[in-house]
Amino acid sequence: MDDRTTASDTPLFDTLTVIGPGLIGSSVLHRARRDGMLARRLIAVDNNPTFRQRVWDLGIADEVTENVAPAVAEADCVMLCVPVGVMGEVAATAIPAMRPGAILTDTGSTKVSVIDAIRPSLRPDISYVPAHPMAGTEFSGPDAGFATLFENRWCLLTPLPETSSDMAVSAVESLWQRCGARTKDMTPEHHDRVCAIVSHLPHLLAFTICGTADDLADQTRSEVLDFAASGFRDFTRIAASDPIMWRDIFLSNRDAILEMLARFTEDAQAMARAIRWADSDYIVDRIERGRQIRRSLIENHQA
Amino acid sequence: MDDRTTASDTPLFDTLTVIGPGLIGSSVLHRARRDGMLARRLIAVDNNPTFRQRVWDLGIADEVTENVAPAVAEADCVMLCVPVGVMGEVAATAIPAMRPGAILTDTGSTKVSVIDAIRPSLRPDISYVPAHPMAGTEFSGPDAGFATLFENRWCLLTPLPETSSDMAVSAVESLWQRCGARTKDMTPEHHDRVCAIVSHLPHLLAFTICGTADDLADQTRSEVLDFAASGFRDFTRIAASDPIMWRDIFLSNRDAILEMLARFTEDAQAMARAIRWADSDYIVDRIERGRQIRRSLIENHQA
Ligand SMILES: NC(=O)c1ccc[n+]([C@@H]2O[C@H](COP(=O)([O-])OP(=O)(O)OC[C@H]3O[C@@H](n4cnc5c(N)ncnc54)[C@H](OP(=O)(O)O)[C@@H]3O)[C@@H](O)[C@H]2O)c1
Ligand SMILES: NC(=O)c1ccc[n+]([C@@H]2O[C@H](COP(=O)([O-])OP(=O)(O)OC[C@H]3O[C@@H](n4cnc5c(N)ncnc54)[C@H](OP(=O)(O)O)[C@@H]3O)[C@@H](O)[C@H]2O)c1
Repeated sequence: MDDRTTASDTPLFDTLTVIGPGLIGSSVLHRARRDGMLARRLIAVDNNPTFRQRVWDLGIADEVTENVAPAVAEADCVMLCVPVGVMGEVAATAIPAMRPGAILTDTGSTKVSVIDAIRPSLRPDISYVPAHPMAGTEFSGPDAGFATLFENRWCLLTPLPETSSDMAVSAVESLWQRCGARTKDMTPEHHDRVCAIVSHLPHLLAFTICGTADDLADQTRSEVLDFAASGFRDFTRIAASDPIMWRDIFLSNRDAILEMLARFTEDAQAMARAIRWADSDYIVDRIERGRQIRRSLIENHQA
Repeated sequence: MDDRTTASDTPLFDTLTVIGPGLIGSSVLHRARRDGMLARRLIAVDNNPTFRQRVWDLGIADEVTENVAPAVAEADCVMLCVPVGVMGEVAATAIPAMRPGAILTDTGSTKVSVIDAIRPSLRPDISYVPAHPMAGTEFSGPDAGFATLFENRWCLLTPLPETSSDMAVSAVESLWQRCGARTKDMTPEHHDRVCAIVSHLPHLLAFTICGTADDLADQTRSEVLDFAASGFRDFTRIAASDPIMWRDIFLSNRDAILEMLARFTEDAQAMARAIRWADSDYIVDRIERGRQIRRSLIENHQA
């Protein structure tokens, strides 16, 4: 790798293989193709023939195949962009075929369980650097991708002392920076707790309130749709995401999500009690906190 | 009133008095001023001298005063735009001074409790038509108002058989239609249940999750701000609204909100159980419902 991570006018890798060119994977390929700064050669692997055809038609890979082993054999970097639930199985096929010294990375939305699933297949002569680009849309598949998806978004890396060499960590950092992202390192456990509160719990609440509304009597339900503009709509926006991806996330970050939901439920019950007993001060205090967080976000230019 | 409600090329009223020209009240005044179709003369009443000065400087009323009684004495229509918690007290001052045959209306976000608070002051010779324009922003006060706030939004009317004459109901409907809104009639109880699920519960959840995040350890909390783009941000957007208004709404629509929160909490617990026991089908089914609602919203052009 040597100076690849510093010289920013040459591609970072010779060959980059993306397994699962859906929303995330195809966005990496679009970026790689647009700027030419990620790799000289791009290989895409998908088990879905329709998706392989789409990737080929989009012209975002030099080779498109369904066979993992040959596609990873010549790669400097292999990026797993498949759903969290199949990371372990795909890694088990890919890793034995990788060349010594190559880098393995993934984009899974949860880290502890993905690392646990991949760890049994790891080899001492390859570096594995888990990552999670915090960007997405409510769409999926190769047609959903675009080159600027990661622009000004965070990509969290959760390097492991035993398997992530310093050089591999900086290469993966450079990769995401060249995709336009800001990078940050943390432990996998901390990552999963942070994502549980900023992303997984909000999605769980959004899915749930849509279900609650859907269970109401017919007349009320149709009015929910009519009058959704008043707050409910913001929930449905985040509730529109892919069911399989979210099922996988909920199952694979179970402990952190259940902990955050338990804290949240306690807080919601305390709010319910305050409403029942007309405890104005408590209610106003909780609302004020929401506004302060909102204000901090605006200062951070995130809202 | 006679043909006022049909002839749309003359003002609906001679004199319209708006009590509480904040976000909602000043938006009505802006609209009235812009099109000249609501009333020939506009009077604004506020107990806050700074707000009176602002309303005057904005030029959206012909008279601005702190005295309710003279300001309502000559009005054909008096519109209460004060916080829900003071509706009763303001109505008790206004109603005795109103001229026979005049119309009283309000814009409170909850209807059962506002009607209960106003009812004791009602007179048989004035018509009271409760209404709720479903539009708003996270800002408040007269500087937040603008003429197009109600454009293509709903205004829900909850007429009462005993106090809302048909003519008064159509006048208030015309008023909101001339503000650009679509109108719909329903009972106050039904209104409060619908708003509990489409607006009040989403706000309660948004305030609560901001509080839950705020209680986390310092390091995680600062990261919540950094990474908020991933779903959490949509919650803070609706959590930014005025604390006093929301306290009033929570307290005055207590029963419907607690009922919806109880249903929601059951559903969230069922989701938690499904996550704990890895019940994939249940999780996917609940997520699918969210997407269906989202799809219906897009078909309704609300998203
Ligand atoms: N979407 C987001 O917001 C987001 C954000 C950050 C990270 N992520 C993570 O990034 C990963 C990809 O997410 P995505 O949104 O890009 O999903 P996606 O659009 O559904 O793409 C996943 C791709 O992987 C393919 N695939 C699935 N199983 C495979 C297998 N066994 N072998 C080869 N290819 C396979 C899929 O094809 P088939 O559908 O035909 O199986 C699809 O092309 C996930 O781990 C997700 O957690 C997602
Ligand atoms: N904002 C929304 O999203 C929304 C949507 C639909 C309906 N509504 C309802 O519309 C009403 C007004 O809401 P808003 O958002 O316009 O609130 P706002 O911007 O805070 O305006 C309320 C106005 O009423 C004045 N006021 C308060 N108490 C008064 C009193 N006793 N006598 C005279 N004036 C008084 C306030 O002045 P001070 O602040 O100085 O007291 C302020 O000018 C509320 O009932 C609310 O529930 C709001």
